[in-house]
Amino acid sequence: MRVRPAGMLTTADLAATMLFAVEGGAQAAAAGLDLFGVLVVAFATAVGGGILRDLLLGDVPPAALRSVAYPAAIATGATIVVVLYAGVRAVPAPVLVTLDAAGLALFCVVGATKALDFRVGGVLAVLLGTITGVGGGVLRDLLLREVPTVLRTDIYALAAALGAFVVVVARRSGMPRAAAMVVGAAACLALRLVSAAFGWHLPQVVA
Amino acid sequence: MRVRPAGMLTTADLAATMLFAVEGGAQAAAAGLDLFGVLVVAFATAVGGGILRDLLLGDVPPAALRSVAYPAAIATGATIVVVLYAGVRAVPAPVLVTLDAAGLALFCVVGATKALDFRVGGVLAVLLGTITGVGGGVLRDLLLREVPTVLRTDIYALAAALGAFVVVVARRSGMPRAAAMVVGAAACLALRLVSAAFGWHLPQVVA
Amino acid sequence: MRVRPAGMLTTADLAATMLFAVEGGAQAAAAGLDLFGVLVVAFATAVGGGILRDLLLGDVPPAALRSVAYPAAIATGATIVVVLYAGVRAVPAPVLVTLDAAGLALFCVVGATKALDFRVGGVLAVLLGTITGVGGGVLRDLLLREVPTVLRTDIYALAAALGAFVVVVARRSGMPRAAAMVVGAAACLALRLVSAAFGWHLPQVVA
Repeated sequence: MRVRPAGMLTTADLAATMLFAVEGGAQAAAAGLDLFGVLVVAFATAVGGGILRDLLLGDVPPAALRSVAYPAAIATGATIVVVLYAGVRAVPAPVLVTLDAAGLALFCVVGATKALDFRVGGVLAVLLGTITGVGGGVLRDLLLREVPTVLRTDIYALAAALGAFVVVVARRSGMPRAAAMVVGAAACLALRLVSAAFGWHLPQVVA
Repeated sequence: MRVRPAGMLTTADLAATMLFAVEGGAQAAAAGLDLFGVLVVAFATAVGGGILRDLLLGDVPPAALRSVAYPAAIATGATIVVVLYAGVRAVPAPVLVTLDAAGLALFCVVGATKALDFRVGGVLAVLLGTITGVGGGVLRDLLLREVPTVLRTDIYALAAALGAFVVVVARRSGMPRAAAMVVGAAACLALRLVSAAFGWHLPQVVA
Repeated sequence: MRVRPAGMLTTADLAATMLFAVEGGAQAAAAGLDLFGVLVVAFATAVGGGILRDLLLGDVPPAALRSVAYPAAIATGATIVVVLYAGVRAVPAPVLVTLDAAGLALFCVVGATKALDFRVGGVLAVLLGTITGVGGGVLRDLLLREVPTVLRTDIYALAAALGAFVVVVARRSGMPRAAAMVVGAAACLALRLVSAAFGWHLPQVVA
């Protein structure tokens, strides 16, 4: 069984994919990688989380590799980085954080919903939703040889986990699929944006 | 076909999972990660090897994600790190090495046994047993941006390989499943503890 | 369905596997890893790309783990590194680059051909051919804690992508399997060797 989100959702998913590709590609360019390296890191950032989710669900080849739409969105994102690098770097931080939060929200609810479609348990669905949201960023940081930022700073992965959790609870409470996704995405987006606005962090265990 | 080790073995497996989670989480805390980062690294350390084994065997979703018991054991381990960090760091090294060796021994024989249950060849079963034992530690080190310690120091991975090898030979010789696991675990444990006690190392190729 | 390249091709594939194992093992030895670490990195370098391809295709256990021939080739390669380390380091660079290019060419066309055998689309087949060629090297660099060199320097991954692309176009044009592989490998080899000879690089986005 495959998730085939129609119309609106597919458009949003491809937009989020392209956005993550731009973010990952820009970071790779700043790290001095060449054109191909920018493309690879853009790819890993944009679909790494979804591919990992699909491997863990046994849905292979992963959805992001079954259609040309995702590679095309990523290639577009990488091209934007190469052609408009100065422009990408000049995007004001609040705009970037908001767009990124929207992408994160979308990815975590899509991931949790797909996991539930595969009839996995609730805990696993929350895990897979979180992985879908943050897996690409972790992979990007590994390729660029950094300790993954989502493990160190900000309330980021927690927002993805919240979004996935809300989806699972909502679906288990009988809420329709689309409504559960909207509520979950709103919860993720709200927590992420409020955290960013107020500079909230999770505490470190060792200061 | 799934390995459903009953009673005693499941308890031991969950105990080893929690122990590895505590070890990984403590290292993540020492590296300055936040609460969520500690949880993620604890998770990766505890079940990374088993998940990789299951992906390679095609047993998806991986066993560690099919039951809530494993995530619960890991969350417990991460909580112990957070609440009792000073206490965890104060555990005497010999105690920690012995517990860790017991966990390693259990994981490598469980991994090799499961691989044989899937009717793979002997070489692959040894490989998968070793991966089950050390894969989580390698993943932890990658996330913390270190060259995996098992590749550099101590007779650690070799002990896991020995345990898996003994399981394969024992089963091929007609020994019952439980006996083969006990013998394999004893071999792994013995080699690991003797190596640690005498400070044995594998030689480096380039000194 | 499995790719069962007969005779000649299997020999070439095993030779390339051993060669990549020698290269990866030598780099691990130079980084100060112990004997087991050298073996692990040799393994990851030699079959990491093929295993990742097979995971993404859902062909598990991966081909490189189904036969003892591949582990044996890798163990032989690692032994060569350990016994003849000085000799391996003394191989003249042009010889090494040429052998490595031949291995890369073979891996990318085998990967693309296998992907087409699994009836995936053309874009995915190019991707999987490229991953087969360069995935092992990326994994090696991650284990040795380096930003993957294929993302930074040389026309290397691009040569693998070209070889895979040529295979896909040739097969789609009705060319027989073996002929498509030869043409694809020649394209990859030519681009790689000419790039190395003239010191061609892809431009960085940020100089």
